[in-house]
Amino acid sequence: MKRSLIALAALSLSVPATADRADEALESDTNAWDFVEGITTEVGPRMPGTEQEARGRVWAMDWLRANGFANIADEPFDMETWVRGEEMAEVTAPFAQPMAITALSTSSSTGAEGIEAEVVYFPHYSDLEAAAPGSLAGKIAFVSHDMRASQDGSHYGFAGPARWTAPSLAASKGAIATVIRSIGTDNHRVPHTGTTTFAEGVEPTPAGALSNPDADNLERMFARAEGQPIRMKLVMTPRDLGTTRSGNVVGEIVGRDPSLQPVLLACHLDSWDIGTGAIDDGAGCGIIAAAAKHVAAQGQPLRTIRVLFAGAEETGLWGSEAYAVAHADEPVFVGLESDFGAGRIWRLESNFTSSDTALYRQLAAAVARFGVAPSGTVATGGADLNLVRQQKGALIDLQQDGTRYFDLHHTADDTLDKVDPAELRQNVAVWTAAVGVLANHGEEIVLPGAE
Amino acid sequence: MKRSLIALAALSLSVPATADRADEALESDTNAWDFVEGITTEVGPRMPGTEQEARGRVWAMDWLRANGFANIADEPFDMETWVRGEEMAEVTAPFAQPMAITALSTSSSTGAEGIEAEVVYFPHYSDLEAAAPGSLAGKIAFVSHDMRASQDGSHYGFAGPARWTAPSLAASKGAIATVIRSIGTDNHRVPHTGTTTFAEGVEPTPAGALSNPDADNLERMFARAEGQPIRMKLVMTPRDLGTTRSGNVVGEIVGRDPSLQPVLLACHLDSWDIGTGAIDDGAGCGIIAAAAKHVAAQGQPLRTIRVLFAGAEETGLWGSEAYAVAHADEPVFVGLESDFGAGRIWRLESNFTSSDTALYRQLAAAVARFGVAPSGTVATGGADLNLVRQQKGALIDLQQDGTRYFDLHHTADDTLDKVDPAELRQNVAVWTAAVGVLANHGEEIVLPGAE
Repeated sequence: MKRSLIALAALSLSVPATADRADEALESDTNAWDFVEGITTEVGPRMPGTEQEARGRVWAMDWLRANGFANIADEPFDMETWVRGEEMAEVTAPFAQPMAITALSTSSSTGAEGIEAEVVYFPHYSDLEAAAPGSLAGKIAFVSHDMRASQDGSHYGFAGPARWTAPSLAASKGAIATVIRSIGTDNHRVPHTGTTTFAEGVEPTPAGALSNPDADNLERMFARAEGQPIRMKLVMTPRDLGTTRSGNVVGEIVGRDPSLQPVLLACHLDSWDIGTGAIDDGAGCGIIAAAAKHVAAQGQPLRTIRVLFAGAEETGLWGSEAYAVAHADEPVFVGLESDFGAGRIWRLESNFTSSDTALYRQLAAAVARFGVAPSGTVATGGADLNLVRQQKGALIDLQQDGTRYFDLHHTADDTLDKVDPAELRQNVAVWTAAVGVLANHGEEIVLPGAE
Repeated sequence: MKRSLIALAALSLSVPATADRADEALESDTNAWDFVEGITTEVGPRMPGTEQEARGRVWAMDWLRANGFANIADEPFDMETWVRGEEMAEVTAPFAQPMAITALSTSSSTGAEGIEAEVVYFPHYSDLEAAAPGSLAGKIAFVSHDMRASQDGSHYGFAGPARWTAPSLAASKGAIATVIRSIGTDNHRVPHTGTTTFAEGVEPTPAGALSNPDADNLERMFARAEGQPIRMKLVMTPRDLGTTRSGNVVGEIVGRDPSLQPVLLACHLDSWDIGTGAIDDGAGCGIIAAAAKHVAAQGQPLRTIRVLFAGAEETGLWGSEAYAVAHADEPVFVGLESDFGAGRIWRLESNFTSSDTALYRQLAAAVARFGVAPSGTVATGGADLNLVRQQKGALIDLQQDGTRYFDLHHTADDTLDKVDPAELRQNVAVWTAAVGVLANHGEEIVLPGAE
């Protein structure tokens, strides 16, 4: 452990006087649960750009209104919308059997009649990279690059390219479709969807993810086929709806001094269509809104606390970008986001740990009793904090334990039962403690380079 | 612990001289894995009465042939065959969202256009029983009777009626369809199928099982709807194919004295269509076949060992009944079945524990070192041992740990990755030890009442 962290750790025994609501939240918060339970039950899936997402915005604004927020608004923006159709995969030879698949967004359609072709197996992304130009002409590429669980989710960066760019790379080498092993760490028949991006000049092809048990099975088929070609039929009929309307929902706890820059708390309200958006990201919206409400209950904060329930995050950060454009000239004091499930928070990161040690130490002291450790890792903020990054502003990451997050990420299994109420309350407690400090902090934050 | 069991336990340190193959199996058996890995990979789902089940029989006979079995046969029988069609459920009001459902066999079809109706909620089976005659006219019944995990699976008997007979009971009170909470102990979006039975005189209706997360969600909707009617749309289009052909696969390790009654080892080769039949019951067939092979490798046994890979168990024990008819006049020495997953064996049960203590003690001593305890529970045999029950013959149950069995039972998640290779080997070791004793036992078994 670094010396500076030991010094910070020594602060952990002092409990700020204003922290009572955080302690209460740990024991008995019901707000975050009410939010995530309500939106998953009364709305369910909230696919970007669709009517179902719009229902989510109405629901969320009602919730904010009922819970004492001011300046509630739905800030509209346009986006390009992709929606799922039918989806079916089956090995047709030599070992005919069905497989569980889900299409990746921006995948093109196979047409209702589907396509059938020989499958070429690439154990890892690098094997696909090594394939010769044109070598996949008329074939279906199968990229089985697998993901491992980690507390900070860092393996997503290693495994992610198999979803993000493998279909485009395979298409550029002639493949008529790509199936990948799900980017996920479970072993259930619930494939993981997500977005893939076809490079400029590469015509999109059908692209889908097999569940991990199906990818295992297809690998075993290659081991048992003894050189016989393995053929697969795919039916995936997603559609591009063109330009549709989405929106960012905002609400505020108005501060005593509206001339001061606000604290921005972000999450996203949309979800993939195949789950119900409980851990991704209903829980996150519940956590930030509950924390803002608790801080307000301690007495009107000095600064305004603004919650941003971003729209259309999943299919390309449309809401984050629209918000950054619409609010470009409104400086943010500090930005925080909750979008990594509902696991307990274990680490406090900021991008001013070394430059504003006084504030960082105050924050570290406020959250330490909830089991949150200080860290030298520099916060980079979440996907919906584009505005803050654009402004080169202050960022805090309240890192959640994501060891099991990628079991559920982007699957049908993203449902309320996966949220642990006690861990959810710990999140609310930590956010309440941290936001309580930030919303009552009168000075500017000293960022690196500004010292 | 009963005194007799303590006496049996004391025997556990003596290892029979003939048990070497069992110990080897524990360390290194590959036969059972090869069977279950092969059939799930090369055949996959084996729905009773279908071409896919027939492919399973060909595959299994090839396997038996390659592994030294004699008298291999496919013994055909006719059956009534039901196959799945499309299946879709969605709540349409007031909280519109899709739900994961799977049809129960003997369910009728909704037609391609589906049906839509108000849902009536019954928390438990007894609540449905209490509903007045005619009270469900035009409604969809939702029976949310839930199941708990137990090592011996005994809660299936408590929860099972919600699948076995609730749709018939609801139909008799006017319901146009029934949805039940899955009879299963997991929380994944993989609903549990199975057979339901409509009583004489009750016209079959559509009937399906929601996954546990969806049943939870539907329950929450009733809590949040404040009396507004909850409406659901169902599309399930299963078909009755009429009479089709299935078969029982048999094979033998021929004994030194063919005039002695054979030892019968049973499992079932068919599986539900939505999974791959790994734990139900590819593993069971792998276990019994591997054990028979190991016993043969110790030297030709005194008695013939017959393996019965029954067909069409899942939709009504068609194979078991056909076998009992075809072999009614061929007495069996003792029957054993493996059809409860691939969890480790923890208990030895027989129906001669009190009447043939010498043999029971010999068996208990043979399996004790693999962690199998004696038991006073009377064995009743598995579903495919109808012949032995009809003959009032000797039965042994090598009880597996089924704590997690009903997480996977009758779901898409019944795939190879759920089989633990070490636990599978423990099964083979126990079976090898027990069958080794039985196939070399010259005397008759003394059954209760015959003492």
